[in-house]
Amino acid sequence: MTELLNNREYKKEQLKRLLLRIHEGGESVEKLKDEFRQVLSGISPPLEIPLIEQELVKEGISAKDIAKMCDLHVELFREAVKGTDELEERDLPDGHPLKTLYLENKEIMKDAEMLNLYARTLATTKDERMRKEILGVLEEIVSNLRKVGFTHYNREEMLTFPPYIERRGLTAIATVLWTKHDEIRFMIKYLAELLRKREEMPWDEFVERFKNKAGEAAFALSDMVFRENNIYYPTLKALLSEGEWKAIRMQEDEYGYYKVNPPEWDPGEDVKPLHPWEINPPELSVEQLLGLPKEVQEALKGQPPLEFDKSELKREGDIDLGTGYLNIEELRAIFEALPVDVTFIDKDDRVRFFSPPGERIFGRSLSVLGRPVQLCHPPKSVHIVNKILRAFKEGRKKEATFWIRLGPKYVYIRYVPPLFNEKGEYIGTLEMTMDIAPYKEIKGEKRLLDWRD
Amino acid sequence: MTELLNNREYKKEQLKRLLLRIHEGGESVEKLKDEFRQVLSGISPPLEIPLIEQELVKEGISAKDIAKMCDLHVELFREAVKGTDELEERDLPDGHPLKTLYLENKEIMKDAEMLNLYARTLATTKDERMRKEILGVLEEIVSNLRKVGFTHYNREEMLTFPPYIERRGLTAIATVLWTKHDEIRFMIKYLAELLRKREEMPWDEFVERFKNKAGEAAFALSDMVFRENNIYYPTLKALLSEGEWKAIRMQEDEYGYYKVNPPEWDPGEDVKPLHPWEINPPELSVEQLLGLPKEVQEALKGQPPLEFDKSELKREGDIDLGTGYLNIEELRAIFEALPVDVTFIDKDDRVRFFSPPGERIFGRSLSVLGRPVQLCHPPKSVHIVNKILRAFKEGRKKEATFWIRLGPKYVYIRYVPPLFNEKGEYIGTLEMTMDIAPYKEIKGEKRLLDWRD
Repeated sequence: MTELLNNREYKKEQLKRLLLRIHEGGESVEKLKDEFRQVLSGISPPLEIPLIEQELVKEGISAKDIAKMCDLHVELFREAVKGTDELEERDLPDGHPLKTLYLENKEIMKDAEMLNLYARTLATTKDERMRKEILGVLEEIVSNLRKVGFTHYNREEMLTFPPYIERRGLTAIATVLWTKHDEIRFMIKYLAELLRKREEMPWDEFVERFKNKAGEAAFALSDMVFRENNIYYPTLKALLSEGEWKAIRMQEDEYGYYKVNPPEWDPGEDVKPLHPWEINPPELSVEQLLGLPKEVQEALKGQPPLEFDKSELKREGDIDLGTGYLNIEELRAIFEALPVDVTFIDKDDRVRFFSPPGERIFGRSLSVLGRPVQLCHPPKSVHIVNKILRAFKEGRKKEATFWIRLGPKYVYIRYVPPLFNEKGEYIGTLEMTMDIAPYKEIKGEKRLLDWRD
Repeated sequence: MTELLNNREYKKEQLKRLLLRIHEGGESVEKLKDEFRQVLSGISPPLEIPLIEQELVKEGISAKDIAKMCDLHVELFREAVKGTDELEERDLPDGHPLKTLYLENKEIMKDAEMLNLYARTLATTKDERMRKEILGVLEEIVSNLRKVGFTHYNREEMLTFPPYIERRGLTAIATVLWTKHDEIRFMIKYLAELLRKREEMPWDEFVERFKNKAGEAAFALSDMVFRENNIYYPTLKALLSEGEWKAIRMQEDEYGYYKVNPPEWDPGEDVKPLHPWEINPPELSVEQLLGLPKEVQEALKGQPPLEFDKSELKREGDIDLGTGYLNIEELRAIFEALPVDVTFIDKDDRVRFFSPPGERIFGRSLSVLGRPVQLCHPPKSVHIVNKILRAFKEGRKKEATFWIRLGPKYVYIRYVPPLFNEKGEYIGTLEMTMDIAPYKEIKGEKRLLDWRD
């Protein structure tokens, strides 16, 4: 990738000159835009802008000027990004997961850019009111950017890594990207903290630190967009079949998006959604290999052969739960391990299941199975049980919750929610009982990385 | 039952005279014991003793004398009970659930008797130190008697009511007994509260109230023993088959016992445990009907025909979970309704199941299935995940728990317990995630009877 990097150095120089001309004024905006567009068309996207602008500041341009430049800059930038990304998106239909990723990256680029510009403007603004305004904008930008990790990155890590990267043995790319994602998450979190704690340090110290860290974060964000757009997405494009994209589309909404709202997309009813564990055989075809971006092909050369993941998810006799496959043994063990005691009564009010007695709060025994729930309660409270069930069945109530002290235990009982099937028919009610006393003692935080062997 | 009652009146007169003779002294203890035994042999058990003793108090016998009488009295009483109960137990092997019930009733009778005697002694004791001692004894008795509800009564309600009473349509007996059980539970709870709050009222008021309430509770307890021994247990004996008793014995330990510790009992390997829902047809045979106690036969006369419960528990395609039968639809609905997000990784560290996305705290999508758990974590924390799993597999740790703040949520994550199958082999690890913030807000109590439509 050295060549690519040198190309970027060259482009940077061109961009710098262009920005200076914008700053000096006097030239037609349209003409400048055209040149801007041309400079950017070769590389995608212009991740160097923050660095160039930092150089401009060093060359004596006042922050006020830079702030003035902001609008045009961002507009030019948008067009530039649009110009280059069109190359990558043009064959993709709306709602296609890959198109969504590209579109999000545009938004990320824009916000990274804004972050950097405002941070630097803040550093040179003397006016108190102006500072406050800029801080407000920065808080919003940073709070937005935190969502990149929850949505865009998370979707990549959870939806696109597993289908092809891991299953097809290309685990290294995933690890590198994820590590960098986490670095960026950390950077943005740090910015948020810095903003929150700004009263705790002298203004100059805060603003200097913030400006530097914002610059680093903006650069890292743009750099990631560049890597994704130029290496990762083309790889996905080369490898994933329509069925895989369909499966991904079906799951995307669970994670959400960064500033885009993709429409439904379906490659056709005849295309079966293909989940990672169904990709069999996972070996790369010659065609797929040759379709990979040059960088990835290069990286694969001289490496040990890829270890394909051929494990089968569904075993004989497994129960298909819709969100996984379990055998009876595992299912029982799960119910036994739950911190909630479960009892299920069916639509005829009969006890149909209870979780196995591990350390149950209220004992249950097999003799209760098939028993009408009304006969499982002290006669004096049966009328309440009936009232609750009636309210559930008629849809008037969505839960009934109780809590009582029982020795050292604080027992929390929840009847919720009335369960309905896909047709909306009532299929039963779930009783969940747990001891919440231990949760009331929990304080502070204990994180995975705090774990000691 | 009028005849029975008159017989009891007569016996009461005899007992009263006997107790007076004990009080007057001068006669051989052994001779008195013999007569006591004879008087009691006709009826079982001597539930009238508290009443008789109350009459003695009215006839001017000092509480001190009654206290002196206590020991002999209780001893005689024990023998008497033993004499009569032997009739009911003699055919039953040790560990047979019915024998256990009879044995517990003896203990209950004894403690009810003690409660009454000590309460009345307390009422007439002037000595401060003596009062304290008696109060200590009473606290212990009352605290013991509270367990009658959790063990003896609870086992009857949960284990013996359903198999024959309800399934065979004899629901009225169950309802009557359960209502009376609850009255007794309430009486004993009241006594416990009275003891706890005794400083809040004048001594005379407390002791008078306590004496009366203790007398009522003791009488109710004895009365229940009488009903059970003479009506309920013979009915069970007439109806339940060996298979049913075997099934009951297998579940008894879940509820516990009142002051007895029954050994294992098994009618034989060839006897299949018979659960309530397996009793088919549930109609009473002529032989069973004729074997019922006279009181029950009388009660059944002139009643509408019994409504037998013929519902089938296991439906076609149901999954046998060991503690119930569910179809896939119900199983999925249960996992969706749980207040805990579940993810299961199998013995090879692969994600095999996650609970369906209702309001999951951390999103999960199908693409995660079959994925090695190490690839589902940010690269920087993978080494910790591996450490935890190693500690689980080697049996060095039984849980790993974490908690973090996430906006308004207080997220509690528990990896527990490492799951093992019946052979003790590691089959996987369960991740459970829940928001405990709502539990931290819970205060006071909200009971079933507080529910409003």
